Amino acid sequence: VSGGASAAPRPDHASLFARRSGQFRPSPVRAVFEIALQPGMISLAGGNPDMSVLPHELIAELARGIVAERGPEVLQYGSGAGIGRLPGLVCELMRLQGAEVTPDRIQITAGSQAGLDLVTKLFCDPGDVVVAEGPTYVGALGVFGSYEVEVEHVDVDDDGLDPEAVAERIDALRAAGRTVKLLYTIPNFHNPTGVTLTEARRRRLVQVCAERGVLILEDDPYGLLGFDREHRPPSLYSMDPDTVIHLGSFSKIFSPGLRIGWIAAVPAVRARLQIAAEAVTIHPSVLGQELAAQYVGGEHWRPALDRAVALYRSRCAAMMDALAAHMPDGVRWTRPAGGFFTWLDLDPRALPHGNLLRRAVEHGVALVPGGACYADGRPSTSLRLAYSAASEADIAEGVRRVGQMLRD
Amino acid sequence: VSGGASAAPRPDHASLFARRSGQFRPSPVRAVFEIALQPGMISLAGGNPDMSVLPHELIAELARGIVAERGPEVLQYGSGAGIGRLPGLVCELMRLQGAEVTPDRIQITAGSQAGLDLVTKLFCDPGDVVVAEGPTYVGALGVFGSYEVEVEHVDVDDDGLDPEAVAERIDALRAAGRTVKLLYTIPNFHNPTGVTLTEARRRRLVQVCAERGVLILEDDPYGLLGFDREHRPPSLYSMDPDTVIHLGSFSKIFSPGLRIGWIAAVPAVRARLQIAAEAVTIHPSVLGQELAAQYVGGEHWRPALDRAVALYRSRCAAMMDALAAHMPDGVRWTRPAGGFFTWLDLDPRALPHGNLLRRAVEHGVALVPGGACYADGRPSTSLRLAYSAASEADIAEGVRRVGQMLRD
Repeated sequence: VSGGASAAPRPDHASLFARRSGQFRPSPVRAVFEIALQPGMISLAGGNPDMSVLPHELIAELARGIVAERGPEVLQYGSGAGIGRLPGLVCELMRLQGAEVTPDRIQITAGSQAGLDLVTKLFCDPGDVVVAEGPTYVGALGVFGSYEVEVEHVDVDDDGLDPEAVAERIDALRAAGRTVKLLYTIPNFHNPTGVTLTEARRRRLVQVCAERGVLILEDDPYGLLGFDREHRPPSLYSMDPDTVIHLGSFSKIFSPGLRIGWIAAVPAVRARLQIAAEAVTIHPSVLGQELAAQYVGGEHWRPALDRAVALYRSRCAAMMDALAAHMPDGVRWTRPAGGFFTWLDLDPRALPHGNLLRRAVEHGVALVPGGACYADGRPSTSLRLAYSAASEADIAEGVRRVGQMLRD
Repeated sequence: VSGGASAAPRPDHASLFARRSGQFRPSPVRAVFEIALQPGMISLAGGNPDMSVLPHELIAELARGIVAERGPEVLQYGSGAGIGRLPGLVCELMRLQGAEVTPDRIQITAGSQAGLDLVTKLFCDPGDVVVAEGPTYVGALGVFGSYEVEVEHVDVDDDGLDPEAVAERIDALRAAGRTVKLLYTIPNFHNPTGVTLTEARRRRLVQVCAERGVLILEDDPYGLLGFDREHRPPSLYSMDPDTVIHLGSFSKIFSPGLRIGWIAAVPAVRARLQIAAEAVTIHPSVLGQELAAQYVGGEHWRPALDRAVALYRSRCAAMMDALAAHMPDGVRWTRPAGGFFTWLDLDPRALPHGNLLRRAVEHGVALVPGGACYADGRPSTSLRLAYSAASEADIAEGVRRVGQMLRD
């Protein structure tokens, strides 16, 4: 027993960490976030929406009005299910992709990342398996890791996931004694590949999972960002709202800074997700919810979204042109029909030496190395480029620098 | 293999839930939140701050200015560590309670509930033990349950936790083979009892835990709400910033609706908490952080806080008067020196029949039944009353109704 005069003992924090913390890894995309701020750097890394299209004066006025007229309410604690009118508005948004959904199935979350965290927390024990596209969203790997969930990748082609390959993988995993709870998928303008799941494959994928009692976690932040509004495939949720849990977000259609998203799920699941959500954040920002409800529920939202999509379409075209002009032989890339990203498969015989991101930064361009988008830490033979937040001139020059790096 | 024409199989969601979900319980306090809205009901349940003291027009104008002048920045994704100036401002707030802390130790969170979730996630494996006051904050029980952490209560008296009892409990738990990672405590104007840990006990408690390699999680939302600003005991964090992790919040000194709080921890722990936080919410609302920084960093904050504390002091006095007037013999209550709550120990020979909350609601008053504040689900022989958000007239009438219930 130490006395009062002895030096205070210092705790060894690392020895107290929970086992799951061994899976906490800094997001490579977040790391690039800092690099991208270096002078002279062109960033084709972050999947940031373009904010220039927003009517900032109008949004500022909405924020003022919300606090001035209802301050005692919006600055106070709110309901764990979300503010009154927002679930109904979310149902209208989901109807645009063919889903008939009622507000009792909508849980408002502090961004769709929080929705992903909550669904994983509700369903996944350590050692459970989630099947996901290979490659997949880096931030989802962070969530699955934090719950010690194992990710099994199924390759994507230009039409997204192959449902038969998913079926075979689930069956093989189960035959090997593994517990498969969820298929995690981004069917529209996939992050990071930019590909879109065809309608026929959607129907078959839902059937494959329903037959096997595997839930589908449909992550759909980009669904309303298709370059062709006439051809919008129905959401997986619209095909089977019992088997599919849908994650939606205001981040790409309005503002990521506010951190407001939602989960659509059967009422019994939604109710448990609310309990889990209240334990984590009590509720999302009430002011953020009100702002999303007033802005997206108002008349200026749609024209601003149209302006944004037109920008993304032009920038995507600029990127396609630049890739055709600057990529060496043996590099293949995807042709997105919406969203923010294209994906490059590099020539395995001519990979850059060393760390791909470091090499790119040396050439003055930030990007996401492909290996970061797999759970198994494989080396990068691919990379993601984002066209959403760069000017056409920067896209042309940035892609030229990528080409230079691959030639060097 | 089922064909296309057969009825779609329906998943059995409950069979897919993770083991931890068995510990997801709706917060009894959140349940009372709805009951409290019934007409004629007087709520002494929720720990809501009084919003009437805030300069709403000023805050509205701040919100407008932030979006109008810096919309493309504040509506965009932000940094996972928090916006630039907020950690420095938090250091100034913590200095008011004697802590010398630098911004590299501050992690901004989406409310201090999120901080509690993150610290538990980083440190606690299923089956680990957290020692906490008995009774303790209901929302902490929700977090600990969601990580399958076991809570061992140590009784409080009018001076808070007894450090020797904590030492004995830790030693006994370890002798029984249990893993004790954290002591969770609310030293100032404790939720739910209203008691404050004396300075001598603080010093000894820190020593007891440091000697045993047990971290202290100091949850301090009410620290600046003391009725006597001249006598503010130093924070546990100020006594040993290696052993103590501090949770702070803007909820009670500004606005709970914005969901902005912080964690102070040694840099190596803070960095891992940031990784965990980014996986859950990416970052807290940028607009909420800016609003907190501008309002609490400005000249109107302190006078409004003084007005709030004066209100709470008067309301606490009104509650003490009403308790003296209306409580039957055998009921004991605490005399808070700040914060929101008093705690009643009922006469065990004269407990109301049946569910305490239901009986109270029948008498037209909402409160938090004491049993909800223990992890072991014991019956309620105590209750929490909040005076923070009710008028003095409602406090008098609400306490009269509680007295009536206890007499009936």
